[in-house]
Amino acid sequence: MSTPPASDGGAFVLPVRVYWEDTDAGGIVFYANYLKFMERARTEWLRSMGIEQRALRERSGGMFVVSETQLKYHRPARLDDELLVTARLRQVGPASLIIGQRVLSRTLQDTLLCEGTIRIGWVDARHMRPARMPVDLAGTLQRFLGSIGSMSPRDAQGPARPSLLS
Amino acid sequence: MSTPPASDGGAFVLPVRVYWEDTDAGGIVFYANYLKFMERARTEWLRSMGIEQRALRERSGGMFVVSETQLKYHRPARLDDELLVTARLRQVGPASLIIGQRVLSRTLQDTLLCEGTIRIGWVDARHMRPARMPVDLAGTLQRFLGSIGSMSPRDAQGPARPSLLS
Amino acid sequence: MSTPPASDGGAFVLPVRVYWEDTDAGGIVFYANYLKFMERARTEWLRSMGIEQRALRERSGGMFVVSETQLKYHRPARLDDELLVTARLRQVGPASLIIGQRVLSRTLQDTLLCEGTIRIGWVDARHMRPARMPVDLAGTLQRFLGSIGSMSPRDAQGPARPSLLS
Amino acid sequence: MSTPPASDGGAFVLPVRVYWEDTDAGGIVFYANYLKFMERARTEWLRSMGIEQRALRERSGGMFVVSETQLKYHRPARLDDELLVTARLRQVGPASLIIGQRVLSRTLQDTLLCEGTIRIGWVDARHMRPARMPVDLAGTLQRFLGSIGSMSPRDAQGPARPSLLS
Repeated sequence: MSTPPASDGGAFVLPVRVYWEDTDAGGIVFYANYLKFMERARTEWLRSMGIEQRALRERSGGMFVVSETQLKYHRPARLDDELLVTARLRQVGPASLIIGQRVLSRTLQDTLLCEGTIRIGWVDARHMRPARMPVDLAGTLQRFLGSIGSMSPRDAQGPARPSLLS
Repeated sequence: MSTPPASDGGAFVLPVRVYWEDTDAGGIVFYANYLKFMERARTEWLRSMGIEQRALRERSGGMFVVSETQLKYHRPARLDDELLVTARLRQVGPASLIIGQRVLSRTLQDTLLCEGTIRIGWVDARHMRPARMPVDLAGTLQRFLGSIGSMSPRDAQGPARPSLLS
Repeated sequence: MSTPPASDGGAFVLPVRVYWEDTDAGGIVFYANYLKFMERARTEWLRSMGIEQRALRERSGGMFVVSETQLKYHRPARLDDELLVTARLRQVGPASLIIGQRVLSRTLQDTLLCEGTIRIGWVDARHMRPARMPVDLAGTLQRFLGSIGSMSPRDAQGPARPSLLS
Repeated sequence: MSTPPASDGGAFVLPVRVYWEDTDAGGIVFYANYLKFMERARTEWLRSMGIEQRALRERSGGMFVVSETQLKYHRPARLDDELLVTARLRQVGPASLIIGQRVLSRTLQDTLLCEGTIRIGWVDARHMRPARMPVDLAGTLQRFLGSIGSMSPRDAQGPARPSLLS
């Protein structure tokens, strides 16, 4: 945890340490827990733009919910490993986001462990029905996407390049 | 899960199976997860008395929160083990309960794995401040405690006797 | 939990109850936890064929690991809801399985909440490298797949039909 | 996570952020998860002394297991809150440790949220039987305890003083 989160022209990076709570009897990180690591990175990425989800909900009555996840697991992480978790905004619509994420092992020279795509919708928290994001939130996300819009098409489709992380 | 929950003169019993999600890299059930198993048993015990916690909250604006836990871990459980989790009401006050709980291993001939005491308070859900339980809830719990009031003082203090579980 | 797991010509079904541990501050089941529910169903489906994963590992030195997950979330579940979780074997290879799964809400008249596809690989537990499944395990799975081979192509691709669940 | 872990004459302090995964439908941190926060702090405290648990197990064949927990919950934490989790070594025996821990809310001006005592035993990992700690491990812990031995008896019994944390 000694390294501060880094942000670059597209991929936000959060260091995460593997604790006992994250592992299972296979001796490795339980696969569902990569979704937790990825959410921590998305949360810190939003926070780095000034977006606090609890405050946002109290103010707007809405919240983000995950509507789709696709994950591939390449190699396992183990207890005490240091991970890097990235979040890269791919697409922003009026009521949803698509985010590409990767988990790398710092312990294993930045080997790719897991990668995925997460689709997130905005709902009104009372009825859980899809809704348009608040204007300022959508604006912040659109501006952020624009600022990384100089990415090549390959980048726009592909996962974070390791070279961006060091 | 093939055995239905059993209830006897004091201890409610819920069968619980150990899955990958419950274990850690030590090859055993992660100790914090016994609190989850115990809560499942308390929840089903309440349900067996007609108390559904979500409905109760929507109706009354209040909810139970755990205010104190004491657990001793005697032996570990492992993947695929079948457990029995007991809940025995020890004390009911106007704003709190004390419940004694045990986790036994059916796989290991009902060996005691873990035992604990859980103190639960009633709060108003909005401000999280201690409050008196709704009259009907307190009444149901008092009657239940009364119905097991013929226990000897030793029983009232002690944990569930295995003989009650078979 | 009063209903026993049902098995039919293709989809195994496990009832699951939603507890506090499964929910998050959105008031709904935390999305990563559907992976836990799905794994419980896969585990009980394997057990229904006589396959116990811990024993299998001790005997063979190998184990299943999840290598890919794809999930879509349609509607949320809440505290105290009763769910039905299905597992349907789609494909068996020498070193991997593909399983289709659904989570339905019994509380909401069997509404579809979540559906997904899980790819599972077999690895040697020591080095976590892909390996061929033990012959008897592969045989059991192949026979099982054969026994549901009369499915129409639509079934083979599609998720469990609700009509099979009642 | 922007503040690095601090260490002082007795209490190790780890900052922890509350994420969605930590909360429940009550809108607060699920009580069992404080055990996870406390373990993260114990793990980082051990690491600060050069003790890595996975490496230790591979080298010695033994590991720590939690044998007893006592927790009191005073006030709830919520999504996005910043917490401080302390670990203070109270006692070291040949086969066990006792550690006092507290969780404070930085968001609420270092209000005490939860405090507890955790007893930890050393076991051989193969048979899970109590065993004597490796000599170098016990020595490191004894020296650490000695280095904070100038604490007054009140300190030795009591939890971390908030003044030590700022």
